[in-house]
Amino acid sequence: MSFAIYDASAPVFVASLTNIQAWLDKALAEGKDAATLIDTRLAPDMRPFSAQIQMASDSAKGAVARLTGLEAPSMADTETSFAELKDRCQRTIDFIQGVDRSAFDGAEDRQVELKFPNGAGYRFVGRDYLTGFALPNFFFHVTTAYALLRANGVGLGKPDFLQHLGPPNISAAA
Amino acid sequence: MSFAIYDASAPVFVASLTNIQAWLDKALAEGKDAATLIDTRLAPDMRPFSAQIQMASDSAKGAVARLTGLEAPSMADTETSFAELKDRCQRTIDFIQGVDRSAFDGAEDRQVELKFPNGAGYRFVGRDYLTGFALPNFFFHVTTAYALLRANGVGLGKPDFLQHLGPPNISAAA
Repeated sequence: MSFAIYDASAPVFVASLTNIQAWLDKALAEGKDAATLIDTRLAPDMRPFSAQIQMASDSAKGAVARLTGLEAPSMADTETSFAELKDRCQRTIDFIQGVDRSAFDGAEDRQVELKFPNGAGYRFVGRDYLTGFALPNFFFHVTTAYALLRANGVGLGKPDFLQHLGPPNISAAA
Repeated sequence: MSFAIYDASAPVFVASLTNIQAWLDKALAEGKDAATLIDTRLAPDMRPFSAQIQMASDSAKGAVARLTGLEAPSMADTETSFAELKDRCQRTIDFIQGVDRSAFDGAEDRQVELKFPNGAGYRFVGRDYLTGFALPNFFFHVTTAYALLRANGVGLGKPDFLQHLGPPNISAAA
């Protein structure tokens, strides 16, 4: 069996977006104040927690769209509660899971353009776009969201970051 | 052309480890106190900055070793200066760049075991190990290192996180 660009994209995005939903639930279960957490930042010139999740969502659905040539659903960045952020994650997951694996056939060689508001940007082939931009950028926002929760006292650990792995399938020595 | 597990691993690790070296240089050029930064944490029960870089290194060289069946060089976690942390990144890069692309042939189906100190762990095939553990875990530590520098006032931005892309290859509109 080979390694497909699908393997390194769609399920990876779905896994971390699902993990984020669980982190939000955990913060709420601990009684943390969501309205405060949503606006927290690591540095004054960094985007707040809500934007980190919005950008994780944009990065994931944008990657799937650019790799397959499909259009990603547009999502207004208007979330102001954890329930809305969880829903944003879910709508992103639903879009990704609705794309058939076969839509990624040949995506490694597809021409991808990434444009910034000023018109500058990058032209890639799909392979370099995924590994050089989409994955690093996605994990940047996922990890920054996690970091903000940790820095604000939410009881998360590496097993929450990697929650998609499930429990170890090799047991501890007796 | 196809997408190979090499494409999604070795060059991805090298790119971010090279970026980290540049962030360390930037912090020093700004006159930041390296001895203080090295011990900084996002939360009392998270590992400090130096450990984030050591774990990014371990995660990268461990992944290349597990995917290829080669042995990764052991590196004692004794770094106490930015020069030593840069050298740790460089030795990790040198190991990865010394592994031939062909050593990754069939790595997607290779049996990989990841064991924790208590004996528990995960058994994966290489494909799932890379996308489910190695890449998320690597970017976790890279981004946490970046977050610590940002939270401590080092003047970094997304272009530093993605420095491996180089300048945009589509120019801004005139």
